[in-house]
Order: sequence, then structure tokens, then C-alpha cells
Amino acid sequence: MNVILPQPLDSADAMEARLREIGATRYHSLHPFHHLLHSGQLTKGQVQAWALNRYYYQSSIPLKDAAVISRFRDKAVRLEWRHRLDDHDGGEGAEGGIDRWLKLTDGLGLDRDYVESTEGILPATRFAVDAYVTFVREKTPLEAVASSLTELFAPQIHEERISGMLANYDFIDDGIMAYFKRRLTQAPRDADFALHYVRENARTPEQRQAVCDALIFKTNVLWVQLDALHHAYVNGFIPPGAFRP
Amino acid sequence: MNVILPQPLDSADAMEARLREIGATRYHSLHPFHHLLHSGQLTKGQVQAWALNRYYYQSSIPLKDAAVISRFRDKAVRLEWRHRLDDHDGGEGAEGGIDRWLKLTDGLGLDRDYVESTEGILPATRFAVDAYVTFVREKTPLEAVASSLTELFAPQIHEERISGMLANYDFIDDGIMAYFKRRLTQAPRDADFALHYVRENARTPEQRQAVCDALIFKTNVLWVQLDALHHAYVNGFIPPGAFRP
Repeated sequence: MNVILPQPLDSADAMEARLREIGATRYHSLHPFHHLLHSGQLTKGQVQAWALNRYYYQSSIPLKDAAVISRFRDKAVRLEWRHRLDDHDGGEGAEGGIDRWLKLTDGLGLDRDYVESTEGILPATRFAVDAYVTFVREKTPLEAVASSLTELFAPQIHEERISGMLANYDFIDDGIMAYFKRRLTQAPRDADFALHYVRENARTPEQRQAVCDALIFKTNVLWVQLDALHHAYVNGFIPPGAFRP
Repeated sequence: MNVILPQPLDSADAMEARLREIGATRYHSLHPFHHLLHSGQLTKGQVQAWALNRYYYQSSIPLKDAAVISRFRDKAVRLEWRHRLDDHDGGEGAEGGIDRWLKLTDGLGLDRDYVESTEGILPATRFAVDAYVTFVREKTPLEAVASSLTELFAPQIHEERISGMLANYDFIDDGIMAYFKRRLTQAPRDADFALHYVRENARTPEQRQAVCDALIFKTNVLWVQLDALHHAYVNGFIPPGAFRP
């Protein structure tokens, strides 16, 4: 059953309230794996598994963003969205988010070739992330933009992660956490644009519902990744072929 | 790390040996959830969750099979594969596999509209099953056929399931298990064709490796579904929005 609020989605404000309710009830900040991660209750091997799997998500983000760009004949949207490619892929002499993620996996002692091969990730990670890229390719451009709205809720979890992980693990230092520090300024810009876009472009109750459903879909993409990590590396059910710390 | 045997894939026999090794080490008959299911250790609510989620897999099979058919200009392959649509979708006055699956969910006391809506399934189920349909659409026709080779290993698990579930649950009877009984005769025919096809059409070591990788992919599709059920309904981490028994 989806989140159902009594208000009809008859305005942008009603839709925004629903979106924030979805974040408050379904964003992966609520997942028990994150509580374990941030409070220092994981072993280094479990943190490695998290970073290894999330590399597949991080390295798929530019594919997703390029797919979004490819949906828009409106050049203004393409230009606005393009900076996300810069943010994640970097460029000539400019470090990007994927580079920063690899600093995290380097710092955790994972072999870079192994990380980049993605051969040790959980199949559930691959299915969830690929579902996100497919969603953005196949749904409406409005839904493609809306699926990025989880960024509305990201700064809080990033702050919690930076302070929690620095305080609680002796194998984590400032350099390793560079990815999250950078996202503290990048994510709000991205989220502001996407929220403004869906407020302006979802003009019927059905379109506003589709926007909310796209956000629920995306929270599921994130949640499934943590469920799979939790099952494999906290409960100990590591599937055949996956990374063993 | 994938399953690695010492023999090079320089013949159809070497490939078939590798395929059977993959089945012996990765098929979902090995998953602890199946052990619980077949030995009577699940509650009715947990069996409901299994049947509800697997409905999404069952009802996606004809999409997958139609996608396979759409890859072949060779009419003989299309004709051979077409009987799978008959098997699963049935026809005028002929019951199909999906109808039989709904008898199972009916028998377990699940509302048919709720089952068919798929709204209560685990997001991981949807991502895994959709990945299977996408695989068959996007990979080579050879890999599309190869991904169905899990049927080589299906009769044994179906026999185990029929006898185990009939013996161990008072809410299971013969009529409810009709789906699996029928598959005992259907699956071997399908598997024989697919195995013959890949033996004839994978002619290089690289193609034989692609066939083996397609089977590993498919075992992951099945395994992820049980991991998700286990995590949600055995370990008790039911994600937001999913069925609650």
C-alpha cells in the first residue's frame, strides 16, 4: 500500500507536502543499516561491502543523468542538468564524484580494479540500480526528473554520515569522506531545480500523482540496496559469487 | 567471483558441464528460504508472501517469452518458443500457468485483485523480474535463450515442493499445487530445446562463456527474490509499503 494522505493533489503545494511525507516515511535514512553504519557498529569488512556496492550506484548516476538529458528538447533543461555530469564524471584535471568515491574505497583498502569491475557486488544492487536507469529512459520526462527528488533529503543524511563515521571508525578520515562533503553543496542545487520543475510542470492531479510515485520508486531503489547489504553482511546470508570481507 | 572450472570452454560438452556446475552451486533450490518452505517451517502468512511475490515472476514470464520470440527471424525457433505462451497464458477454455498460480494464491486466502495489482510485492522482486525481461530484450538471442536454462534444474525442486508442501501444511491441497504438477512435464521439454539450441549455436569459447554468464544471471534473478523474501518475512525487515501478513 502506498502512502495515502487525505488531501487531493490539486495544487503544487499539496504535491510538495506529499513528497515531503514520502521522504519522511520512506527515505533510506530510516533504514537500520544506516543506523549501524553511522553509529560505528559495523566492522571494516561490512563498511567495505557498503562502499563496494554503492560504487555501482555512483558510477551509474551519469548514465542516468545523460538519459534524463536525452529526454529534453528544451535546451534550458539540458544545460541545467548537464552540470550533474560534470559533478559526477569530473573532467580535465577536475575531480568528480566517482573519483571521490574511489578515494573512499581506496581508503577502505579495496583494490581499485576489483571495485571498478563491479564483479563482487550483490545482484540486488545491480537490479535496483539498473531499474533506476531504465525508469529514466522509459517513463515520462516529468517522472524522470521527479525520480531525482530524493536529493531533497540527502544533505541531512550526509551530515549525519560525515560526523558519525569520522567519530566512530579509526579507518575513516577527512580525505576519505570527501565525496559526502562535496555533495552537501551540490545536492541542494540539484534538488531545488528538480522541485521547481515538477511544481511548474505537473499540472493535473494525475501528473502530480505520477511525480509522487516516481519518488516512491526511487526510495525503493535506495532501500532495496540497503536491505540486500543488511541481509548479506549483517544477517550473514552472502549470496553465491558476492564479495566476502 | 564467478564459478571457475579449470576446463576451457572449447566444446559443447565442456559448456554443458559448466552449466550443470552452475546449477549445482547457484540454483535457488539451495536457498535457505526454500528449505523452510518445503519442510513446513513457514507460517501461512509467510507462504502467502512467497506466493504473492512469485505471482509477479509468473505473470512476467509471457512478456519474457514474447521478447525472446521477437528476437528471432528464424520461424522454426519462433514456433518452438510459442508453446511457452500457450503454457503460461492458456487460451480459449484452456487454463494456463498464470491461472494455476492464481489458484494457489486463492487457496492461500489472498484477494485476487490484490495479487493481480502487484502493489504489495517487494520492490526487490520487481527489480529482479524486470531485469530478466530487459536482459532478454537487450542481450544477444543466444543469451536470451540461455537465460531460460534454469529449467534444466526445475523438475527436482518442483517434486520436492509438491511432496513437501502437501505433507507439511494443512492449508495446501492437490488443487492448489496444480501449477507445479503441470510444470513437471512442461519444463523438461523447454529445457531440452534450449540446451540443444545453445549447444548448436554457441560456437566459440566467448559465446560459450556468454551462455554460462546468462545462466548465472538468471540464477541471480531467482536467488535475489528469495533473499528479499527471507529478509522481509523470516528476519522481519518488511520494507515500507510491502504486504504484511
